[in-house]
Amino acid sequence: MKLNAVIAGVGMTRFMKYPDKGLKELGAEATRAALADAGLELADLEGAFVGNCAAGLVTGQESIRGQVVLDSMGVGKIPIVNVENACASGSTAFVQASVMVSAGLHDVVLALGVEKLSHPDKSKSFAAFAGAMDVDELKQMMEDLAKAAAESAREGKGGGAGQSRSMFMDVYASAARAHMEKWGTTREQFAMVSAKNSLHGSLNPNAQFHEVLSVEDVLADREIVYPLTRSMCSPIGDGAAAAVILSERKARELGVEKPVRIATTVMHSGYNHAEDEPDTVQLSSAEAFEEAGLGPDDLDLAEVHDASAPAEIIAYEQIGLCKPGEGGRLVEEGVTRLGGRLPVNTSGGLLRKGHPVGASGLAQVVEISNQLRGRAGKRQVEGARRGLAQNGGGKKGNDAAAMVVTILES
Amino acid sequence: MKLNAVIAGVGMTRFMKYPDKGLKELGAEATRAALADAGLELADLEGAFVGNCAAGLVTGQESIRGQVVLDSMGVGKIPIVNVENACASGSTAFVQASVMVSAGLHDVVLALGVEKLSHPDKSKSFAAFAGAMDVDELKQMMEDLAKAAAESAREGKGGGAGQSRSMFMDVYASAARAHMEKWGTTREQFAMVSAKNSLHGSLNPNAQFHEVLSVEDVLADREIVYPLTRSMCSPIGDGAAAAVILSERKARELGVEKPVRIATTVMHSGYNHAEDEPDTVQLSSAEAFEEAGLGPDDLDLAEVHDASAPAEIIAYEQIGLCKPGEGGRLVEEGVTRLGGRLPVNTSGGLLRKGHPVGASGLAQVVEISNQLRGRAGKRQVEGARRGLAQNGGGKKGNDAAAMVVTILES
Repeated sequence: MKLNAVIAGVGMTRFMKYPDKGLKELGAEATRAALADAGLELADLEGAFVGNCAAGLVTGQESIRGQVVLDSMGVGKIPIVNVENACASGSTAFVQASVMVSAGLHDVVLALGVEKLSHPDKSKSFAAFAGAMDVDELKQMMEDLAKAAAESAREGKGGGAGQSRSMFMDVYASAARAHMEKWGTTREQFAMVSAKNSLHGSLNPNAQFHEVLSVEDVLADREIVYPLTRSMCSPIGDGAAAAVILSERKARELGVEKPVRIATTVMHSGYNHAEDEPDTVQLSSAEAFEEAGLGPDDLDLAEVHDASAPAEIIAYEQIGLCKPGEGGRLVEEGVTRLGGRLPVNTSGGLLRKGHPVGASGLAQVVEISNQLRGRAGKRQVEGARRGLAQNGGGKKGNDAAAMVVTILES
Repeated sequence: MKLNAVIAGVGMTRFMKYPDKGLKELGAEATRAALADAGLELADLEGAFVGNCAAGLVTGQESIRGQVVLDSMGVGKIPIVNVENACASGSTAFVQASVMVSAGLHDVVLALGVEKLSHPDKSKSFAAFAGAMDVDELKQMMEDLAKAAAESAREGKGGGAGQSRSMFMDVYASAARAHMEKWGTTREQFAMVSAKNSLHGSLNPNAQFHEVLSVEDVLADREIVYPLTRSMCSPIGDGAAAAVILSERKARELGVEKPVRIATTVMHSGYNHAEDEPDTVQLSSAEAFEEAGLGPDDLDLAEVHDASAPAEIIAYEQIGLCKPGEGGRLVEEGVTRLGGRLPVNTSGGLLRKGHPVGASGLAQVVEISNQLRGRAGKRQVEGARRGLAQNGGGKKGNDAAAMVVTILES
């Protein structure tokens, strides 16, 4: 939908494991940073949408997570809506906040994504991943994947389901193998994604990892499930990211400096599509471009959902940054690296900035907003005017459960 | 906010324990019933807001609960937003669906509340209750309440924290004792609420309990925590309720029979209010009446959040159906009974219709819609034209975490 709303400020915590911080501390830090960036106060907020995915299963805090965070900062009375859409929970908060403002229902709304995913008992983090799939489907899938992995192992390709940190990596590995088979994409190309994003992440103070990895480092890392090594998988971490969304009128009234226009933000749910039907990334991207009156060539940068390295390559193709099958070449030719024609995941992406599930979608918005406002420091894309964020969540049938594509303009 | 949206159809499952049904079966039944009532098909839906509170902690299904339910019916592609606000999750779905339609963002939206709360392992249901409070606050509260209950026991009033089915009943019991002390409200008056609602519930095929209780039955029931007996507490149960919300234009276009106008639906979050400041029920009711241009005297019926019997009496006063301190007398005089001047909880309320947390708010909407359309069978309030629904969720500080007050008109 065409929107009449702008981002006035963004903020985030560094993504990492915070053994001593919970939802309240993380959420408050991102909220205060976004408000400060907007030049606004807590008392200016007229509503809040809060995305979180795992707290119920990791910390026992269900149901009123947004209230718990905001009340700890003294914010009450205003409507607070807790939203959830697995890894797209943060983007869902962003969509709802944006459309509420655009529709004239509020003038100043907070979109917050916050996640405390790490836990000394790792089984709790894994339960959160499982909860982002249809739990009935999950059982069936575990059986199917175990079978496929056994076959793959017999063919000497290594790997094996059940060794992976979550079923999602089995799903990504399976998609990666299919892409290799169909298009000749190579493990090296997947590794190039991780290496590129490690370089980007090294320039982002808020990234979980600052180490620069070579393609060789990535390939030599521990195998999770063929063809994925550990460096090709997003890590477990905690963090929060926030955006303060204003009506255009309010932004003018307050004299907000360099507001970022939300050209559009499109959400679709997964469906069991046939081979020749578009998946949710294709659906949502095409619709976003149409609504914004733009095409892939108009973009200066993009943040895509690289929960695994192959996912970034597949996303290039689904979004239309290149033709089907050419994603591997796109990264190999350096097009999507800082300095290339269309830098992707300048933040370090989910792979290196980190992936505290409910916060990840809003962290994409933080990165693009900072880029469009010329505040991205050493990883600034010169003259960036338009950026796209793609954030998917969960799994349902042969698609993501939820998909959000957002286009922002300076 | 003033809304331009109507309810075209409503539907619900009977509320009860369903050992053999899950979210999918319950959610599908309510959705199909609401669509049939509206004369619409699944394919007409343009978006869905799904409220659920406990699935993560009870069944392990987090994050994509709405997608899981709707995909099982073949519904995909459309935006599905999972919302959560403890016992007000269903109302939160209703608010979001209503404002999205009113703002012109969609023409046909589903609001669904669905809950599978019962579990052979009762500790799972209790974990869901705990998750609806600030888990840090909870620890402190358990200590405080244990102390207060010990004192109460010393004074010969029986009871004791820790015996209760959930901390919420300790909270309600504490509020009830304060009301008794301040206003002279009696245990008999609390029992009259349960008896009245049992009569109403006996006339509602979808109520969990159909047995008619006398005041004596309620008082003679097992004590949970003084002054509450078991019949003064809402039960654990499962179920789903749904409403199909249309723009007024779309309703006219489709020739919807007897659409119910959503005069307003107001949401507030809890805050630590001072003694002389309004709580969220007072805030939300006052705002709802103002926005609808109505007052308590204009109402023909109301559904209020009687998670415990004393809560209904307190709600009368907070909403303004009577003066402070007169709630006990209101029920005693039969004003809020079927046939009285202002019947409250004609559905049986949470006490007798049942309280599958995330579904309860939408079940209130179902009841009022059916009443306003003259479809409430043996419990029909003759000539009902205006009804109010009040649904609270969770606990934060000295208030509910979320509160929704809705006014519907025929």
